[in-house]
Amino acid sequence: MPGVRPPQEAPTSRSDAELIAGLRRIVGNEHCLTRPEDLFAYGCDALTLDAQRPAAIVLPESTEQVASAVALCAYLQRPFVPRGAGTGLSGGAHPTPGAVVISLTRMRRILSIDADDRIAIVQPGVVNADLSAAVAHHGLFYAPDPSSQQVCTIGGNVAENSGGPHTLKYGTTTDHVIALEIVLPSGDVVRVGSDTGFAAGYDLTGVAVGSEGTLGIVTEVTVRLSPIPEAVETLLAIFDDVPSACRLVGRIIESGMVPASLEVIDRRTIEAVEASVYRAGLPQDAGAVLIIELDGAACELQAQLERVRAFAYEEGVRGLEVARDDAERARFWRARKGAFGALGRLAPDLYVHDAVVPRTKLPEILEKICEIGDRHRLRLSNVFHAGDGNLHPNISFDRRDPDELARVIEAGREILELCVAAGGVLTGEHGVGNEKRDYMGLVFDDVDLDAMRRLRDVWNPDGLCNPDKIMPTTRPCMESNPKARGYDAVPID
Amino acid sequence: MPGVRPPQEAPTSRSDAELIAGLRRIVGNEHCLTRPEDLFAYGCDALTLDAQRPAAIVLPESTEQVASAVALCAYLQRPFVPRGAGTGLSGGAHPTPGAVVISLTRMRRILSIDADDRIAIVQPGVVNADLSAAVAHHGLFYAPDPSSQQVCTIGGNVAENSGGPHTLKYGTTTDHVIALEIVLPSGDVVRVGSDTGFAAGYDLTGVAVGSEGTLGIVTEVTVRLSPIPEAVETLLAIFDDVPSACRLVGRIIESGMVPASLEVIDRRTIEAVEASVYRAGLPQDAGAVLIIELDGAACELQAQLERVRAFAYEEGVRGLEVARDDAERARFWRARKGAFGALGRLAPDLYVHDAVVPRTKLPEILEKICEIGDRHRLRLSNVFHAGDGNLHPNISFDRRDPDELARVIEAGREILELCVAAGGVLTGEHGVGNEKRDYMGLVFDDVDLDAMRRLRDVWNPDGLCNPDKIMPTTRPCMESNPKARGYDAVPID
Repeated sequence: MPGVRPPQEAPTSRSDAELIAGLRRIVGNEHCLTRPEDLFAYGCDALTLDAQRPAAIVLPESTEQVASAVALCAYLQRPFVPRGAGTGLSGGAHPTPGAVVISLTRMRRILSIDADDRIAIVQPGVVNADLSAAVAHHGLFYAPDPSSQQVCTIGGNVAENSGGPHTLKYGTTTDHVIALEIVLPSGDVVRVGSDTGFAAGYDLTGVAVGSEGTLGIVTEVTVRLSPIPEAVETLLAIFDDVPSACRLVGRIIESGMVPASLEVIDRRTIEAVEASVYRAGLPQDAGAVLIIELDGAACELQAQLERVRAFAYEEGVRGLEVARDDAERARFWRARKGAFGALGRLAPDLYVHDAVVPRTKLPEILEKICEIGDRHRLRLSNVFHAGDGNLHPNISFDRRDPDELARVIEAGREILELCVAAGGVLTGEHGVGNEKRDYMGLVFDDVDLDAMRRLRDVWNPDGLCNPDKIMPTTRPCMESNPKARGYDAVPID
Repeated sequence: MPGVRPPQEAPTSRSDAELIAGLRRIVGNEHCLTRPEDLFAYGCDALTLDAQRPAAIVLPESTEQVASAVALCAYLQRPFVPRGAGTGLSGGAHPTPGAVVISLTRMRRILSIDADDRIAIVQPGVVNADLSAAVAHHGLFYAPDPSSQQVCTIGGNVAENSGGPHTLKYGTTTDHVIALEIVLPSGDVVRVGSDTGFAAGYDLTGVAVGSEGTLGIVTEVTVRLSPIPEAVETLLAIFDDVPSACRLVGRIIESGMVPASLEVIDRRTIEAVEASVYRAGLPQDAGAVLIIELDGAACELQAQLERVRAFAYEEGVRGLEVARDDAERARFWRARKGAFGALGRLAPDLYVHDAVVPRTKLPEILEKICEIGDRHRLRLSNVFHAGDGNLHPNISFDRRDPDELARVIEAGREILELCVAAGGVLTGEHGVGNEKRDYMGLVFDDVDLDAMRRLRDVWNPDGLCNPDKIMPTTRPCMESNPKARGYDAVPID
């Protein structure tokens, strides 16, 4: 989580004027935004704990424009920050003060679809769900499905290696990206990977996916498409408590089945959902619900469904509904995918935390997480990818209340330390960003961090490309990125 | 393919003596080999086109011994080369003259198996097939299955990102490795990835897999295990020619099915197999056979099998056998997995080529590859992963015949250029090694290669760790690795 830094002087207007004039020449006046309200709007992404004022926002429409804007920033030694739809939850698109935000949302064309080889080539601003919609008539879909999939972009997904409720069976973004075009921080353009899915030499595609926009700006993405499964069964299992739901998750996985999804929603989230427009008819006195989705061959699913049913009753399920049609399936999922929106009603701000623990430790960790929230007098609720052990403790708060904000930050820290002590990791799918960079030392020692820092410096030696993300802002890192640190914090909120 | 370099003076015996004394202190006398016959045996891997004389072979038994040996090499500025079972086909374990070969074959313990979470932690010297055997009673297997799986090691598989006949459905090694312990070229030990399958920060695991031992030496591997499918159906489809077999491959894939394997064996390979101990009863007048393996739920496979049968008859199949039991399945696979052994009978040496082309271009490319072989008067046969478009043209030859050797090298070059011109890539699963480093320029421009070179230099700045692999030996690369070039070629054969 970002520390609060003292306000300092903004970059001089003279250097800003030169920069902005250059950017306008590259993308045109109408696609270079500098009004105060624009700078405010792009001051943070969906991590609202911290916000800064960029110098300008550019919206290029081509790889050439991206490369020119990056080359100009490199020439002027100005930090720049790539941005998709701004739905990221770890501050990966947070500008450093005075940075240029390069928004890829105008590059939203699907360039080609090869249904036989099941690949598509897309620009980074294509919305995740739009790609699946565009290939559905071929019987295909794009598997990674973040909860924000109706608005988030493929480019942002590549930066954060996004997962979603179906990660359990289908993996994360890195499992579905086979080639990239990248504008390096120097302004050079490279193509990595290949459309065959095989590539000689170092796996630069794998390096780039999940690098949170710190190694360059992705301008074209070749993705694998997956066949839509023949059949889907979606179950809603209602439990008196979260540990029982987690035990059923364990039974299912240990039986050898690979469900498409295993998602738990706790009582506090159920209450929020049922009080919102996402109302799904969940019993408000339930301790937890578990959404179980099975997909595959129709003939196979009936047997799986019976096994799940038997396990569920053995684990004391209170009620078990099987979606009879797509409308009912959508109702179950509305509770899950609408949870964050519903929680947004409870307070002006929502901090969506993200950590992973060994699946077998879910019950005890969840109990302790709730204790941490209660101790700090915070409204904390849990929605999580139980099959992956990927937790999302959510804290509803008001950042204008400095005392509450401090308690949110402290609780977040305690939750991370708890998860790491249990053998977990800092993030499952939201990335490190500026949110968790200073916690990297919890899981990596100096040798590990130095290996990562040197990797970043390969392509981003001046640290101008998305500064202050991933790596801890300890002294050695600052020294390795002297130029990126030329602009200091100017909080705008 | 390695150029033939002029013989030069070997490193002085004085520096060798100091090195060897140090290595003996680390691993013990009996695990440091320096007799001429040892140096000869470790002079190459399964790419026999070129061989060099190392200074010594060490066989460490622990991470600490590997780290000490590496640190000693770094201190003495001596190149070192990690080696698994030596089955690699791109020269990835070829020592540069005077290098220390660090063989990991004594580190062959399976350290832990977690059947519930379906992961195992193994040392790098564990034999691929032994891991599957060790977890079979849990209903699990390790999916990547190179043809050499009875002898090749997991560590070597990690280095080369190995695939196999089941890559089509299950992916390559990188899809199954979630964490690594690595001794860096400095002698430092890092742990990358995590046993949960999620990891914060840069994907160093992904970078290391497939880096061909040039970024460090892997000393521990955490792999995902896969559930053994409920049912398997294996078909042998007999065709008059290769294009018909390839058309059936296209029909199956385009229908949306994801078979476990689609493997083509051409007439010349059938003849070799049938004349060998691997005899599988294939009709020797067939133009090609296609092995089709389907796996999954039993109820699902019957429908798939009927669809494949219908497609096969539409594409003019001459005969179609469905394995009635495991013995018959083993017979079909004996033809495929024994092909390289059978071809080994034809001549003292076998050059197993490896390239990938878009699947739809298989028929025309295969015809042209056969033409290239014929034009150079070479015994060329084809066995290939048709579903992936991953070709293995195999050339039987005698390296003691310099004219034939030159023709093998020239034909290999022409085949690569042909595949790349068709939109393909240099290697599907064997790696670049020293075999194809000088062809990297066919698919990558200077900016791409510079990005890769800088990545290598992150951890391997002196180039001592497995020199002369992957990157072209052009002047800039030589300059970036001045120390690695201190020893020049001393061919030993």
